[in-house]
Amino acid sequence: ALREFIVQLLQPSEALFAGQHIVITAGPTREAIDPVRYLSNHSSGRMGFALAAAAQQLGAQVTLIAGPCQLTTPAGVKRVDVVSANDMANAVDEVIADADIFIGCAAVADYRPEIAVTQKIKKSQDTMHIELVKNPDILAKVAARDNPPFTIGFAAETHDVVNYARGKLERKHLAMIAANDVSNSDIGFNSDDNAMTLLWRDNAGEIQQTQLARAAKQTIAEQILRHAAQIKNNY
Amino acid sequence: ALREFIVQLLQPSEALFAGQHIVITAGPTREAIDPVRYLSNHSSGRMGFALAAAAQQLGAQVTLIAGPCQLTTPAGVKRVDVVSANDMANAVDEVIADADIFIGCAAVADYRPEIAVTQKIKKSQDTMHIELVKNPDILAKVAARDNPPFTIGFAAETHDVVNYARGKLERKHLAMIAANDVSNSDIGFNSDDNAMTLLWRDNAGEIQQTQLARAAKQTIAEQILRHAAQIKNNY
Repeated sequence: ALREFIVQLLQPSEALFAGQHIVITAGPTREAIDPVRYLSNHSSGRMGFALAAAAQQLGAQVTLIAGPCQLTTPAGVKRVDVVSANDMANAVDEVIADADIFIGCAAVADYRPEIAVTQKIKKSQDTMHIELVKNPDILAKVAARDNPPFTIGFAAETHDVVNYARGKLERKHLAMIAANDVSNSDIGFNSDDNAMTLLWRDNAGEIQQTQLARAAKQTIAEQILRHAAQIKNNY
Repeated sequence: ALREFIVQLLQPSEALFAGQHIVITAGPTREAIDPVRYLSNHSSGRMGFALAAAAQQLGAQVTLIAGPCQLTTPAGVKRVDVVSANDMANAVDEVIADADIFIGCAAVADYRPEIAVTQKIKKSQDTMHIELVKNPDILAKVAARDNPPFTIGFAAETHDVVNYARGKLERKHLAMIAANDVSNSDIGFNSDDNAMTLLWRDNAGEIQQTQLARAAKQTIAEQILRHAAQIKNNY
């Protein structure tokens, strides 16, 4: 009886996603310029880690593919650490085949330096320029698979947030997108709180949207997942 | 008697730098590309924070000017947080006039994007380039003051370490430079340990050097400071 009790305690609190594998990317990526310098962005990884924790609590098997961030892995979550967008794309490729849901929450660098030099660049000139090439679009690649998982994107924008999110949902053939305004420093990148607009395509192909009011990232994460489960079941 | 005992406990353990003000820069700087993207480098700030802790222990009044890093301020140290190289240069300007020793341990970004745009850049092209302009050389500016503090630089290099450090010592008119090889991942940027070559100019104008064997950054920090005190007293 004690054994059963302990097993019970270790069970997720709810089995909304029982038997489902959810793959989540989180954090920034870093794109090497040379051995000491890099390009990156202000993503803290907190929203992606909150999603991983909530998905595990809701009964999913969770793989969290994380760029460089100083956060503790949620209990019961399998974490894969990566640095660059290319690393992240490879890590996603390795686990995506059996994923039921993919959540691209990482702030993947859009571009990387064309050539990452192996020796530190010396500053000899008054100006310098870095040639950048586009990184793989992990989210679009996942959504374009033959038998894609339910694919959720994020749009962290500084202006015209909902319009841009709608365009991204359509262009990348996503199932759902969560948009937030990072120009408001009370929510978003390095904040504990977030507020979101969710957009998704309904059965009739119409784009629907709903607001998630400002709340702790953990609360927002659970709301996004419950919403996703409902839409996914209606398909 | 109890009061004296407590005052005693709160005293630094040694008064090598009693009455002296030591200004230390630490960590990386971040140079904004737009509101979400930036250029930075792999400095953890640990060496600079270790120097600040050791300097305080050795009786100095310490101002620590720190770029973005997730480290605890050493007890008794005044910390000023900055983001970009320009911020750091301004923070140094504000406190440098009465400094006895300046230690430029920060990995200041050599270049910053010419224009940091206020809206997030959209990825519309396959390639992109960033124009960079040179940042102020904080270390050289401090050493070039009319009545400069004893100015210590750092050289974190991936190749030809000692030769480059010697060139930097001469070119920037430093009193001393501490050089390390960051291509060895056991020491340097994100390691707990470090190993250094110290170079300085003696009374006869000759460049001297000595090796500090691999040790914890705290130990290396104390060795650098004791060495600096000795050279400074011999001038």
